[in-house]
Parts: sequence; C-alpha cells; structure tokens
Amino acid sequence: MTTRWLTPEEQRAWRAYLAASRLLEDAIDRQLQQEGGMPHLFYSVLANLSEAPDRRLRMTDLAETLKITRSRLTYVVTRLERDGLVRREDCRRDRRSSLAVLTDEGMTVLERTAPGHVGTVRSVLFDRLGPEQVGQLEDICTGIARGLEGEGQAQAAVEDVPWRRRSSPCSGTTDE
Amino acid sequence: MTTRWLTPEEQRAWRAYLAASRLLEDAIDRQLQQEGGMPHLFYSVLANLSEAPDRRLRMTDLAETLKITRSRLTYVVTRLERDGLVRREDCRRDRRSSLAVLTDEGMTVLERTAPGHVGTVRSVLFDRLGPEQVGQLEDICTGIARGLEGEGQAQAAVEDVPWRRRSSPCSGTTDE
Repeated sequence: MTTRWLTPEEQRAWRAYLAASRLLEDAIDRQLQQEGGMPHLFYSVLANLSEAPDRRLRMTDLAETLKITRSRLTYVVTRLERDGLVRREDCRRDRRSSLAVLTDEGMTVLERTAPGHVGTVRSVLFDRLGPEQVGQLEDICTGIARGLEGEGQAQAAVEDVPWRRRSSPCSGTTDE
Repeated sequence: MTTRWLTPEEQRAWRAYLAASRLLEDAIDRQLQQEGGMPHLFYSVLANLSEAPDRRLRMTDLAETLKITRSRLTYVVTRLERDGLVRREDCRRDRRSSLAVLTDEGMTVLERTAPGHVGTVRSVLFDRLGPEQVGQLEDICTGIARGLEGEGQAQAAVEDVPWRRRSSPCSGTTDE
C-alpha cells in the first residue's frame, strides 16, 4: 500500500502540536514540582479524587479517567500513599478491584497547590487563545480522544486502550 | 491575589486536551515500539537528523527543535549511538558543542519505520479532523509554543526553556 505522507499543512500542524505539547507538559510539570513537589500526573490523581463522591474512585475508573495504564496508576498511587496523600481500600461491591481514597492531608496539599497550577494553565494556554479557539481546541481534542477510545471500532481495538491493557511495553515515559 | 479558576468552557477544553494528548502519545509510542523497537522521541531524533544538511545537527540545536533538555537528548543519543543509528562528532566551528549524525543504518531504520508511523499519525489525528481544523490546530499550537518560548518576555523567562536549562528537576517522564 502506498504511504499517504502528510501534506505540508498537516506537517506544520503536527510539528506545532509536538512542540506545544512538549513545552506545555514541561511548564506544568515544573511548576507543580517546584510548588507542590510532585509531577503533573500525581496532581491529576489528587484532583480527580477530590471531585469524586466521598473522594474515592475505583482504580480501574481512575486509570480510565486519566487515560493511563493500570500499572502506571498503581505506581503513582503507591507513591502518593507513601506520602500520606492517598490511601487504598478494598472495594466492597467488587472484590477484584480496589479503591483509591484522597486523605485529608491529600486534600490540604491539593488546595494549597491548585491556585498556582491553575495560574500556570491559564498563562501557558488560555491566555494565548481567543474565545473561539477554546471551543476549537475542545472539539479537536474530543474528536481525537473518541477515536482513540474506539468509538465505532471493533472490540479488539477497544481493548487496546491503556487502562484495559495487561502490560505497557512502553508508556512513552520510560525513555530516560 | 484571587485565583482566576477555569471557566466551564476552559475546563472542558483542558480535560479534552489532556485526554487527547495522553492517548495520542500512547498510540504513537506503541506503534513505534512494536514496529521500530523505539519510543517516539527516539524516532523524532532520527527524523530531524534525516532532514538536516549532511544529516547532522548540533546537539544544542537538536534539543531546541525537539523542545527537550540537553540532558534528556544526551540520554537518547547515547542509546541510539549504542544501536549504531546515530554517531557523535566534535563540532569544528564550536569546540564546546558536539554534533549528532544519522548513520546509514539509522537512515535505513527510519525509512523502514516511517510509513507505519505516518499511517498512525494519520489514523489517530488527521483522519479525525476536518480541513479547517488542521489550520486551527496549527494556529492554537503555534501560539502556545511561541508563548512558552518566551516571545516578548524578559530574558530570564527565555532562559527557562528546556534546552537552555542546566538541569531538569523533572521532565514529566521520570515518574515511573
């Protein structure tokens, strides 16, 4: 099959996306490391738990929300548990799954860190966008995420999302 | 100072962005691992070198193109050198810098891997976008990248980009 190479417009968009996404993640991680002592993903775990009923979520649901593998989530939650920010509980309704629960200390750290984080997201992203671009970004990203989550695809493809995979040969974060 | 929390529209756009960017990186990394035996960033190094005159770039310029720290690039290039895909040379014009050069074997691996990679970028991204969205994505991402590269900012902020930093307390990839 002949390769359909990217058009010049697609090439420019792809390179701009790679540059923006790497710079964004770098800036957000640095602020959270400096002010909260944790990388972005750790913060996302605390933020998601804080919004859940009783501040608790099944590990499988949390992995799906964060779009990461369960093994990666287990690593993050183990670290957060060690620092007293999260604790784990068995799930009463489903013996095979466990729950992650935000502790009071975790909530305190989150509340202390959130303003600086939101300020960074605003200054690196939303302060750079016009009002119509906010909607465009949402539409573009929602379309991409739905496609990758297997909307309209065969079951095999749906099983391939990170949070349903058994193992993660490379999550893109093991290259250093 | 009162925190300017995200509006509901910004909140939705931010969450959609996080989901899409994590899923995209996961899908692209998996394809490259499976077919090329390397993560996305390694591929990007080969691709950028292949387009440079004489297939060689100064390490500092390569780090800037990739938007990563020099220490991270050094790690990647050392691994690629070990596999014979890249070699390093001293820079004649600037004794302090060194060059990364794509080897013939690196070019062969790149040529073999590129069609599958481009096919993945197409299926996970561009097949999901309308023609006007390609331009929107480029505009949005170019604006973000320019802001983060310090356009119109003080020198101090410009010094803070990844490729000019002395060290990287956390690059967002050391959390597992």
